[in-house]
Amino acid sequence: MSDQPAVRPTPVSGFPEWLPHVRLVELRWLDTIRTAFERYGFCSIETPSAERMDVLLSKGDTSKEVYTLGRVHDVDDDPTQADPTQSDSTRDDSRLGLRFDLTVPLARYTAQHFNDLVFPFKRYQIQRVWRGERPQDGRFREFTQCDIDVINPDRVPIHFDAELPRIVHEVLTSLDLPAWTINVNNRKVLQGFYEGLGISRPLDVIRAVDKIDKIGPDGVARLLADRLDPSRLQAVLRLARLRGGPAEVRELGVRSPLLDEGLEELDFVLSELSDLPNVVADFSIARGLDYYTGTVYEGKFVDWPEYGAICSGGRYDDLAGSFIRRELPGVGMSIGFSRIFAKMLSEGLLDPGPSSPADVLVVLPKDRRPIATSTAKALRDRGFNVELYHQEDKVAKQLRYAARKGIPFVWFPPFDEGRPHEVKDLASGTQTTTDPATWSPGGQRPANRSGTGANG
Amino acid sequence: MSDQPAVRPTPVSGFPEWLPHVRLVELRWLDTIRTAFERYGFCSIETPSAERMDVLLSKGDTSKEVYTLGRVHDVDDDPTQADPTQSDSTRDDSRLGLRFDLTVPLARYTAQHFNDLVFPFKRYQIQRVWRGERPQDGRFREFTQCDIDVINPDRVPIHFDAELPRIVHEVLTSLDLPAWTINVNNRKVLQGFYEGLGISRPLDVIRAVDKIDKIGPDGVARLLADRLDPSRLQAVLRLARLRGGPAEVRELGVRSPLLDEGLEELDFVLSELSDLPNVVADFSIARGLDYYTGTVYEGKFVDWPEYGAICSGGRYDDLAGSFIRRELPGVGMSIGFSRIFAKMLSEGLLDPGPSSPADVLVVLPKDRRPIATSTAKALRDRGFNVELYHQEDKVAKQLRYAARKGIPFVWFPPFDEGRPHEVKDLASGTQTTTDPATWSPGGQRPANRSGTGANG
Repeated sequence: MSDQPAVRPTPVSGFPEWLPHVRLVELRWLDTIRTAFERYGFCSIETPSAERMDVLLSKGDTSKEVYTLGRVHDVDDDPTQADPTQSDSTRDDSRLGLRFDLTVPLARYTAQHFNDLVFPFKRYQIQRVWRGERPQDGRFREFTQCDIDVINPDRVPIHFDAELPRIVHEVLTSLDLPAWTINVNNRKVLQGFYEGLGISRPLDVIRAVDKIDKIGPDGVARLLADRLDPSRLQAVLRLARLRGGPAEVRELGVRSPLLDEGLEELDFVLSELSDLPNVVADFSIARGLDYYTGTVYEGKFVDWPEYGAICSGGRYDDLAGSFIRRELPGVGMSIGFSRIFAKMLSEGLLDPGPSSPADVLVVLPKDRRPIATSTAKALRDRGFNVELYHQEDKVAKQLRYAARKGIPFVWFPPFDEGRPHEVKDLASGTQTTTDPATWSPGGQRPANRSGTGANG
Repeated sequence: MSDQPAVRPTPVSGFPEWLPHVRLVELRWLDTIRTAFERYGFCSIETPSAERMDVLLSKGDTSKEVYTLGRVHDVDDDPTQADPTQSDSTRDDSRLGLRFDLTVPLARYTAQHFNDLVFPFKRYQIQRVWRGERPQDGRFREFTQCDIDVINPDRVPIHFDAELPRIVHEVLTSLDLPAWTINVNNRKVLQGFYEGLGISRPLDVIRAVDKIDKIGPDGVARLLADRLDPSRLQAVLRLARLRGGPAEVRELGVRSPLLDEGLEELDFVLSELSDLPNVVADFSIARGLDYYTGTVYEGKFVDWPEYGAICSGGRYDDLAGSFIRRELPGVGMSIGFSRIFAKMLSEGLLDPGPSSPADVLVVLPKDRRPIATSTAKALRDRGFNVELYHQEDKVAKQLRYAARKGIPFVWFPPFDEGRPHEVKDLASGTQTTTDPATWSPGGQRPANRSGTGANG
């Protein structure tokens, strides 16, 4: 027996982990997303968890949330600092931090491997990111994002602006979530509209309107009262609260070349997606102020708008300007995987399910281990996931084990020479004679199979 | 055009990343491993990248290699330190570090969730780990391990000692590697043999013999010259260099109860695996000195023994003694995924392959986008991975794109009303008329499909 335990194993706030039966659902979700991304021909990349700090902060992001890597011993001992592959001049920049999103690593990756990539570069990336913020509802310190981006030197066809939300729509639909919408806007519409009103610094207004979800129209009005006369202020709020699409914006009577361009792009994207009723225009969303330059997206739960975005993204003119002298425009979307998953879990909306990926538990009959082993092998060779019970316990205990793990079928190899195999369906309780060479579970596949089911 | 780039995007030593065509192979490998683990009914878990430092160092591991997490700002600003869920008394222990293996997290996880797990707890875990050591051939600072363990309170049947290397054997076989062996030993054999020789502190001898791969028999002899008389030293070296199995050990004439027990266990494991010719006894391997208590495993490439272990593991009596007052024995194996993958890559033994998961590129005919879009949709609905070319480029350019990405089939929707669809097999160059509702690639599936293919 152990001594009194020296360390109490407790959860670390903001770093979630799941029990096996929840992890099985998470795996199925991740497979679903990957399958959809690959269905459209996007390739997978993964990047290291750590990037150089100068890379991480190159876009002017706040350093406050970044986790830096250190060592227990002094810097003199630290190979990170004394890396022989780093020249003296870069040594000061060689401090490492954990990535806080998948966009900065994508920019660095695309620039670094520019000559080895085939463009348009269509990549997906499903990885963890880290942010040292205070954990709260839907916000973790370690969480998984699922990003999909298209990058091409000089120009990316607008058709990708429609293809990405279609892919994300497919993903969200197949995850069987409560009602959600993907809201679409175009930064040129906002900026062009404000320009058409004769507003001189439209970015300031965008910044204020972007807060409308949090502070309401009155709050936005207060923020802008000093900057805009009442009629302009009214027009700004009217656009932000507009129901409808580009036609309704045009009816507001404001004109500018940039507005026309934005409305045309938005019109195109919405019409390409007109078969998807929950993809709608929303003229209040702006997303990441200095980043996006055209189409922007933001997905939300209908019943939990305050929970924040479940997916987001947009078009950018210059992804990797800090890293390469090539203009690399692109368009991308990010699914807030952990946010969505944690919400479904806390709302009790995840199917509880089994804690084993096994289709079958093969029972160990007393003194007949060889027949149990060969039965398990035969079933595995036919592609079934099979647990073999290794301890010579009573059959009742073996059955209880299968039930507790949610294994749907329990297999009884012959307990005596010359008897047939039998299999018991734990859900229905029916037990039938069978043969490992021909058995099939019947009906549809058990729900606990976690393979991707990819590729038809 | 961008200004001169501010940050040079260069690789960070020890943190590898792959181009898309290499990543596709990596994904296929990971799917293969996951499929094999699930085939035997092992469930997936993932644990947070960061653990509390007191957890990480609870087994007395050296802190030298552990990456600690820090923040750019002062500790006062740092929510990690000021976490309201941490009581004052634990605040000093709340420093976080990145895990350096998957065993310590498993121990913590099993203890923390003890009441929610079904035992025997059979889990696999495929995740990255971090070690701040100097990068060298086969050693990275961030790398992926694939671990598989069985844990049960009080007792784990010895049959699992044979099942685990069988699973790992299946995995390594399906990865199509150059010749390798899985070497098996039992710590009781070593310790019991030394006890039988009347050696008083057998662990010291084990520690010396464990170095035989690096320093040779003469080196081991020098290390032990002060401790052992020549006849005992000869016997120790004779065991370490013995060819054969338990029977050959018994012929050496040494006896002790522990030796008998170890030989019996080893005999059982080897006889269960007698159908696998490259699973062999090796009486020189000891693995992790204070950790394993019975069976131990170590896999190696036949032609690169100096490259070190490609998989390893063993049986332990008490996994989580630091965390819980229950004896939790187990047996586990770890596949050094990144080590193996990087070696295959550097030896040129990986199939280069495509950089897109797509089976088909649908060509965009001039002014006929709708037929291209509906063709892509029809093929995707049938389960194929399809890229649609979005830019109205010349057909030759579109073909070049498919060839450069390694997409095996190029699809030509009708360029004029009433004409048939055609599809070109880029490998053979043959082009045939076809129909998106019925087409199949013929022969076997294209090699670039990266779905798990799990579950039959």
